[in-house]
Amino acid sequence: MPPALASVLDLPADHPFPRQNLPYGVFRPTPHAAPRVGVAVGAGVLDLAVLEAAGFFAHPALEAARPFRAPTLNAFMALTPEAWDAARTTLLDLVRPGSPLDRAASLWEAAYHLRSDVTLCLPATVGDYTDFYASREHATNVGTLFRGPERALQPNWLHLPVGYHGRASSVVVSGTPIRRPRGQVLVDDAPAFRPSERLDYELEMGVFVGGGNALGAPVPVETAHRHVFGFVLLNDWSARDVQRWEYVPLGPFLGKNFATTISPWVVPAAALAPCRVPGPHQDPAPLPYLAAHEPRGLDVHLEVVLRPAGSTGEVVLSRSNARHLYWSPEQMIAHHTVGGCNLRPGDLLGTGTISAPEGVGSLLEQTENGRRPLSLLDGTTRTFLADGDEVILRGWGQGPGYRVGLGEARGRILPAP
Amino acid sequence: MPPALASVLDLPADHPFPRQNLPYGVFRPTPHAAPRVGVAVGAGVLDLAVLEAAGFFAHPALEAARPFRAPTLNAFMALTPEAWDAARTTLLDLVRPGSPLDRAASLWEAAYHLRSDVTLCLPATVGDYTDFYASREHATNVGTLFRGPERALQPNWLHLPVGYHGRASSVVVSGTPIRRPRGQVLVDDAPAFRPSERLDYELEMGVFVGGGNALGAPVPVETAHRHVFGFVLLNDWSARDVQRWEYVPLGPFLGKNFATTISPWVVPAAALAPCRVPGPHQDPAPLPYLAAHEPRGLDVHLEVVLRPAGSTGEVVLSRSNARHLYWSPEQMIAHHTVGGCNLRPGDLLGTGTISAPEGVGSLLEQTENGRRPLSLLDGTTRTFLADGDEVILRGWGQGPGYRVGLGEARGRILPAP
Repeated sequence: MPPALASVLDLPADHPFPRQNLPYGVFRPTPHAAPRVGVAVGAGVLDLAVLEAAGFFAHPALEAARPFRAPTLNAFMALTPEAWDAARTTLLDLVRPGSPLDRAASLWEAAYHLRSDVTLCLPATVGDYTDFYASREHATNVGTLFRGPERALQPNWLHLPVGYHGRASSVVVSGTPIRRPRGQVLVDDAPAFRPSERLDYELEMGVFVGGGNALGAPVPVETAHRHVFGFVLLNDWSARDVQRWEYVPLGPFLGKNFATTISPWVVPAAALAPCRVPGPHQDPAPLPYLAAHEPRGLDVHLEVVLRPAGSTGEVVLSRSNARHLYWSPEQMIAHHTVGGCNLRPGDLLGTGTISAPEGVGSLLEQTENGRRPLSLLDGTTRTFLADGDEVILRGWGQGPGYRVGLGEARGRILPAP
Repeated sequence: MPPALASVLDLPADHPFPRQNLPYGVFRPTPHAAPRVGVAVGAGVLDLAVLEAAGFFAHPALEAARPFRAPTLNAFMALTPEAWDAARTTLLDLVRPGSPLDRAASLWEAAYHLRSDVTLCLPATVGDYTDFYASREHATNVGTLFRGPERALQPNWLHLPVGYHGRASSVVVSGTPIRRPRGQVLVDDAPAFRPSERLDYELEMGVFVGGGNALGAPVPVETAHRHVFGFVLLNDWSARDVQRWEYVPLGPFLGKNFATTISPWVVPAAALAPCRVPGPHQDPAPLPYLAAHEPRGLDVHLEVVLRPAGSTGEVVLSRSNARHLYWSPEQMIAHHTVGGCNLRPGDLLGTGTISAPEGVGSLLEQTENGRRPLSLLDGTTRTFLADGDEVILRGWGQGPGYRVGLGEARGRILPAP
């Protein structure tokens, strides 16, 4: 018997998944069962196919599409903000003591699973994954390391959200082990093939695209918010030594494409609406196609935790906040599509590493490219990640009296093959 | 009534689709019908779902997967070279006067369509698209233009196949109009938003990946040929002015992602086996993980034809040949996966622009970045492409007495929005 709804909702104020969050994900009730769409609340997950079959989603677009029968969120992401709002309103009503769901014991029993009992999957099939470079602090830190403080920002950086195409096939869900890549690196000025010795994490948020646009039909910045379905945490694992040798002139390739980890629960844009804040002042003013309305920013607290190899303790490596992102998700979408490129529901946009005045989002920055090792409490040091290290990204927005948690994006490093 | 098989096979020696080719594609028999998998022969296309339902494909893997019921080639591409060979052997047997197909009039009638009657579609759902930069002549020409002859090749170029992730969503089939992109460009050293004035084509071949590899499990160069399903022509449309301003440090983005055109017929690797030739000598010798066996090269004649705006005539802009590609498809696959990145059936690899001693594969090279306009026969000139221009890529391998044609990749430029 599942716990009663009232006890599911009896949560501490810092719980990531209160009734006000209701993030969407995909889970297998048992390890080999077919994937199902669900929503997280408290320590549980509600099976949306069960609720859909029971007829709760009465909005015409939801009745026509029946998006929750699908094994991924893509069909739901393909709908409009009005349909997403209708589904959310329905869910907010159902996850309330005394609701029709609460009163129907057999339905509640069929729909509710403990999250600790289920296996979480990628929430959507990622058609294309694009990674931006939208934190001024990060771009400045990296530019300073490699070109000095005078030329830290490239000439284009303040004029457009710099981004590149990433690899969709290797986007994995939190908990998937990360195999240290081997690759071609420069050793004493000669190329050599060996395991990466500069394996790093990158603290990012991911934006799942909703709706989509036809090829040749740009999304204006004014309506770009209609294409922001929701948010996840994203770790853009990076092999700095591989990247350094390969990236001129076409950008990162094998230095990044061995894995990208995302958190399993997609927090709806509506749940994070209370966390919208003005973005950083933009000077020079962006060209009109990038002139986004405020509030552009997203006040989401972020932290990077390391569970060092052989240890069960956790070390907070860094704390940051997404509010410092110079370019907003809406500006990224307007820029991405302005030449006609089509976005599809389920496409994933990474913000780029989120560094901030209060903390940085990579070991590259934190150790100054390995020159200043970190001392951990267990007496070991790190310049970059060691085999067996586990990196855990966490994040949350603070609402009035509750948290909107993004959950976790975790990955442990396995030794190179 | 369709023509008799014997008359379908009565082809001139330079026909692109003789019995020895049998490229795979996807077509709609009528403009709104569901897509079907087919094979091209002569002026026709054979519906493979019809032949599969008739029980012709007896190989166990083909009987188990029934890949030709699908609306794309992905399911067939997911099989092994042994299954592809079995299907090809069956088709070579069927497309022969007196074959069981030739003798069954109703089956022949159900399976055969004139290509001029059908609508051609993308042959596969492209999971990820990667573009390489594998022509030494092209990299040298471009490097010379921007950095001078002394520093033309970047330091990494002779050591690894440089590549980057492209945009999968905007890969389109031949014939799709190409909308001139607008974008951010530098004008008098200040960023401005306007239609690209340096719209270019790039002559490439595309490789469709077959099979695939698990994340973390590299494909050794020795077995990489087992992942080459087949070849198409590929036009990597490029907005040089957009690309120039955006590409440092993360590579091309909006300068490329507005469209990539491929030819509709995927020529099986087996059909081009007679065109395998030794590749260019590689000095320095590649690291062992890239040490591919000969014959690495592919003797495929390529040409770029322009049908200028307002004209019905064709101008050959350039002739080239894929045999000059420095890095082979097998080396691209070994490199792409060596850090653990997973390839999936239907993934597309572009070779990069194929320039050669006999001709170049872009207007950037041909006009020296616009400094030397081309004079066309109609009295007009071009530095880059004009609205209304149509670019047609063609290619073929020469077999003993027949051609293995790649068909065409066409696109006409529409004015900016």
